[in-house]
Amino acid sequence: MDKYKRNERLAVMSQVLADNPNRIFTLSHFCEMFGAAKSTVSEDTAILSRTLKEFGIGTLETVTGASGGMRFRPMTQPGTGRRLLENICDQLKTPGRILPGGYLYFSDILSDPTMVRGMSRVIAAEYYEKSIDFVLTMETKGIPVALMTAEALHVPLLIARRSSKVYEGSAVNINYVSGHGGIETMSLSRRAAREGSTALIVDDFMRGGGTARGMISLMEEFRCRVEGICFVLSTESSEQRLPVCEKSLMVMRENGRGETPDIVVGDWVK
Amino acid sequence: MDKYKRNERLAVMSQVLADNPNRIFTLSHFCEMFGAAKSTVSEDTAILSRTLKEFGIGTLETVTGASGGMRFRPMTQPGTGRRLLENICDQLKTPGRILPGGYLYFSDILSDPTMVRGMSRVIAAEYYEKSIDFVLTMETKGIPVALMTAEALHVPLLIARRSSKVYEGSAVNINYVSGHGGIETMSLSRRAAREGSTALIVDDFMRGGGTARGMISLMEEFRCRVEGICFVLSTESSEQRLPVCEKSLMVMRENGRGETPDIVVGDWVK
Repeated sequence: MDKYKRNERLAVMSQVLADNPNRIFTLSHFCEMFGAAKSTVSEDTAILSRTLKEFGIGTLETVTGASGGMRFRPMTQPGTGRRLLENICDQLKTPGRILPGGYLYFSDILSDPTMVRGMSRVIAAEYYEKSIDFVLTMETKGIPVALMTAEALHVPLLIARRSSKVYEGSAVNINYVSGHGGIETMSLSRRAAREGSTALIVDDFMRGGGTARGMISLMEEFRCRVEGICFVLSTESSEQRLPVCEKSLMVMRENGRGETPDIVVGDWVK
Repeated sequence: MDKYKRNERLAVMSQVLADNPNRIFTLSHFCEMFGAAKSTVSEDTAILSRTLKEFGIGTLETVTGASGGMRFRPMTQPGTGRRLLENICDQLKTPGRILPGGYLYFSDILSDPTMVRGMSRVIAAEYYEKSIDFVLTMETKGIPVALMTAEALHVPLLIARRSSKVYEGSAVNINYVSGHGGIETMSLSRRAAREGSTALIVDDFMRGGGTARGMISLMEEFRCRVEGICFVLSTESSEQRLPVCEKSLMVMRENGRGETPDIVVGDWVK
């Protein structure tokens, strides 16, 4: 007789998988946890997979091969991401968010854990199949979204700094032209990235693309490949395209000073 | 007859709760989700609560009163947090982490999503009963741990900046004496915090406590109360105590230049 009931096993597996998105678990992992036979856990997995799909929570896949097992990927059902972002667009369009100079205040959204988690999952869903080794962001405002994207992909986060810090060890520094035309510096610890790795760049906002181009140059210095770049928000007038395929969760059409901007969800979001 | 089986309901509830720590869900929320009777969902909750406790995953509590329902708090079982931090201490003591000048390299750990989540849950567990309204951190390295602590507490994160930014709107700036004796500035958007709120300060490292005192002053300016301060790492020689009860996940005993420091888990960690 099994030590635990099926409903107990499913409750626990569900928690463990929710806590560890995109991480591969072997069947044996759960067999040991529950003192149950492989056939039992295999059947549990099938039920769990079907149920999580039915409720639009995510995809539980079987991974074959030597390092095989199962892998959970949250919120990959069409519609879920788009609805979430439409809600955020509505919030961004509320009056009072336009600051002097025509800037949009959205720092609160960029550090609200619930909204950040949702946005990060939409981003992660686009890159699950791309063998990303790490997520790179530039301090400061993009860090929350980048962190949770890294969590969803089960990879580390690397944070480029505006200047090299003594507690980062030896660092690679590059200069780049910022959106405002000035020369700025970007620094990343030498030990942060391994040559030949694949990076996903995640940042909060793109207008001119200067910082993004800086991060691409930085990755060249580390001999890492940039698979993609994803922004939370970009302006429609971001005319200077980047050398790497870029995506933006939301796109802003500026209406001139002081007016509420029109913000829409990126076309690619399912 | 119920539309879904108990094991399906438990799998879904488990996911929803894992994704929304410390958020109160009414019984009705799940009744509607599953088209099930209150008595059924109530029984589900009892099984889930017992199972999650048995596996040391967390506590599912019943909340009474007008806004009553259930609330899940991850990893509050004694031993879990301490084991996790002992593992991190071991990693920090590996050779090669000591940088010129005796600094300890631990940026990789501060932005590893799995480790950050674990550390954040240990912090959150100490403050679940304290009615925290928001988590405050100072850019940059503490942001990941602070964000996930905020997520675990189901509250927003506020990020103080080194200088005021045009896209943060009008800001409160304060000057403070840094660990190195210099005068530094700290800035937080005026609209970030509401008067009378309760803050939990989370940061990566404390030596002299200058930045921490700066954040306390900043909260005074906002007329917010600081309930506690928690660091990932502090030095044993942090002799100047802070005016607010401080905790540190790990404490470092420095052995002088170049030697591997002795790092232990904070006494208070269960």
